[in-house]
Amino acid sequence: MYKLLKKQGSARRGEFTTPHGVVQTPVFMNVGTLAAIKGAVSTCDLKEIGCQVELSNTYHLSLRPGDKIIRKLGGLHKFMNWDRPILTDSGGFQVFSLSKIRKIKEEGVYFNSHIDGSKIFMGPEESMQIQSNLASTVAMAFDECIENPSPKDYVQRSVERTTRWLKRCKVEMDRLNSLPDTINNKQMLFGINQGGVYDDIRIEHAKIISEMNLDGYAIGGLAVGETHEEMYRIIEKVVPHLPQDKPIYLMGVGTPANILEAVERGVDFFDCVLPARNGRHSHVFTSEGEINLLNAKYQLDDSPIDRGCQCPTCKNYTRAYIRHLFKAKEMLAMRLCVLHNLYFYNNLMKEIRDSIDGDYFPKYKKEKLEQWNQ
Amino acid sequence: MYKLLKKQGSARRGEFTTPHGVVQTPVFMNVGTLAAIKGAVSTCDLKEIGCQVELSNTYHLSLRPGDKIIRKLGGLHKFMNWDRPILTDSGGFQVFSLSKIRKIKEEGVYFNSHIDGSKIFMGPEESMQIQSNLASTVAMAFDECIENPSPKDYVQRSVERTTRWLKRCKVEMDRLNSLPDTINNKQMLFGINQGGVYDDIRIEHAKIISEMNLDGYAIGGLAVGETHEEMYRIIEKVVPHLPQDKPIYLMGVGTPANILEAVERGVDFFDCVLPARNGRHSHVFTSEGEINLLNAKYQLDDSPIDRGCQCPTCKNYTRAYIRHLFKAKEMLAMRLCVLHNLYFYNNLMKEIRDSIDGDYFPKYKKEKLEQWNQ
Repeated sequence: MYKLLKKQGSARRGEFTTPHGVVQTPVFMNVGTLAAIKGAVSTCDLKEIGCQVELSNTYHLSLRPGDKIIRKLGGLHKFMNWDRPILTDSGGFQVFSLSKIRKIKEEGVYFNSHIDGSKIFMGPEESMQIQSNLASTVAMAFDECIENPSPKDYVQRSVERTTRWLKRCKVEMDRLNSLPDTINNKQMLFGINQGGVYDDIRIEHAKIISEMNLDGYAIGGLAVGETHEEMYRIIEKVVPHLPQDKPIYLMGVGTPANILEAVERGVDFFDCVLPARNGRHSHVFTSEGEINLLNAKYQLDDSPIDRGCQCPTCKNYTRAYIRHLFKAKEMLAMRLCVLHNLYFYNNLMKEIRDSIDGDYFPKYKKEKLEQWNQ
Repeated sequence: MYKLLKKQGSARRGEFTTPHGVVQTPVFMNVGTLAAIKGAVSTCDLKEIGCQVELSNTYHLSLRPGDKIIRKLGGLHKFMNWDRPILTDSGGFQVFSLSKIRKIKEEGVYFNSHIDGSKIFMGPEESMQIQSNLASTVAMAFDECIENPSPKDYVQRSVERTTRWLKRCKVEMDRLNSLPDTINNKQMLFGINQGGVYDDIRIEHAKIISEMNLDGYAIGGLAVGETHEEMYRIIEKVVPHLPQDKPIYLMGVGTPANILEAVERGVDFFDCVLPARNGRHSHVFTSEGEINLLNAKYQLDDSPIDRGCQCPTCKNYTRAYIRHLFKAKEMLAMRLCVLHNLYFYNNLMKEIRDSIDGDYFPKYKKEKLEQWNQ
């Protein structure tokens, strides 16, 4: 259940209540694709760096270790020892981004495993069944994610099918939640708005799915080829047509600047692999923008990654030390940078929430964008 | 300074006081070759898992990042944020184990870098200078480590040279400690007993170095080809000829059983890459012996690696989860197992100390060996 606490312009400060606790929004979800954050970061670490919601991938987990294994072990929360909310994606995006050969039919998608090439079928019902086995807090609807730009007539037909799939997702999730042996019988379902870069298709679709009384609404199919400006325009167009009493989730976005722009336009939930991926490649976020620790100028730099940062890395280790770890190919380098970057994102969201609470979000946003572009 | 607190048979319970704090012995030193424990384990983690002494490698650090860099950054303690004792090896073992081409002369060893093949010279003075730059708590003497078995006449000549090198090490360390700009002007020096598997050479060498009033004495050149029985015999022969008011360190050893046997024969200090290396390869130590988590029987095993273990891994994660992480090639798998294995070793040493304090070491040793061999 989403409760709007405060609004400044279109920026929303809210609380999202789930069976696994209350989420303060806007929020950034930390991505643990295979039930672990890449870079040797555990759920214990996630608590320490202020993560509220963990996100895992339905498609990946269905292959390894298998959703039925996780179900037998009591669900994803127990499996990875995380008692706060978990959102699972639907597998839709991975089917389109990881599989080279795929055939989309009305019933679902036939494709090949990215691990061993074996044939797999996934449709709305299968996606819901897997997510029910995982027993995440929030399940995402199974949709088609189209790259941008795509021909308008294709996008139109795809979105219509995604709508039909969404209805099937809802029916199936209701059925699964009512089964006596379901692990999480209050599993929530978020629908996903699609429509490429076509405002009219996006708006029409937003209106249709808004009437389905889902637990939340995502904007999907962005950050897949279009410009930042197109992305911001679409968010602006779509948000007013989504229910204002439900959380709005912008999928797979993005940079710290993207997040500020999207919050300004009314988005509540975010996720992105960027902070963990960049951290593993020595790129870290600071109050003065992103830096690459491999740069020779950090060889004798005994300051933390970011002065004033309260993350476990900055409280204990220097740029010179972490640079050495990267040069020496020590795994610890990746871990320290992923911890820092995720803390940076989680802390950014906290500061955003504080700024909306305190009525100074526009000022905060302006200052941050200026600092990062120094 | 070493203080013998208690003896049971030849097993010793002691305290070793250093400028970086007091070490309770017998102790296992946790190996961080390049100023980091392999497996994404940090010095913060080391504190949590009961590590008393960290060990780093002189040769590796002299190449990356360079001992002069570490000196400029205030020494190894500051560099890696560790305020407890650090022991650095001398580089001698690495010269012999990592370099394919080497030439041993009276002045030292000419060899090729294992990174880029470039020519390097290291002698006793160079080793002391590097270790002084690192500013470790304990420096190890530069010696020749000979593989077992080697011809007796070669071993005899090598040991005589190692003795001459030890004298040069002591002179150089005294000189370095007296320099006004030395970071740690109380750096300690341990000598190393050599002599292959020849009791008479070992004993003669032990007697000679015992007269040099060093801060501690190591038994080197074991676990390099000889049988466990030969190793135990040599420890038994050598220990009585080393000063009883100085700590005795068995280098590079070993399995939990090796440690129990060596403690029984009077050894105080240990180090080994085994627990971290095995952990990275899914092999973990338990109260019922070593197990391989990749074994299919752990797929649905929701118990911790070792029931009753108080390590951060066992308190939070299951065998099934860690097995999945290995299968999914998640770095977190290695981290969790290295944390567990190092905790297992540190905790083993604590139990050994308690058993000597409580006068039941022989019973404890017998029980442990039986449990591990179940």
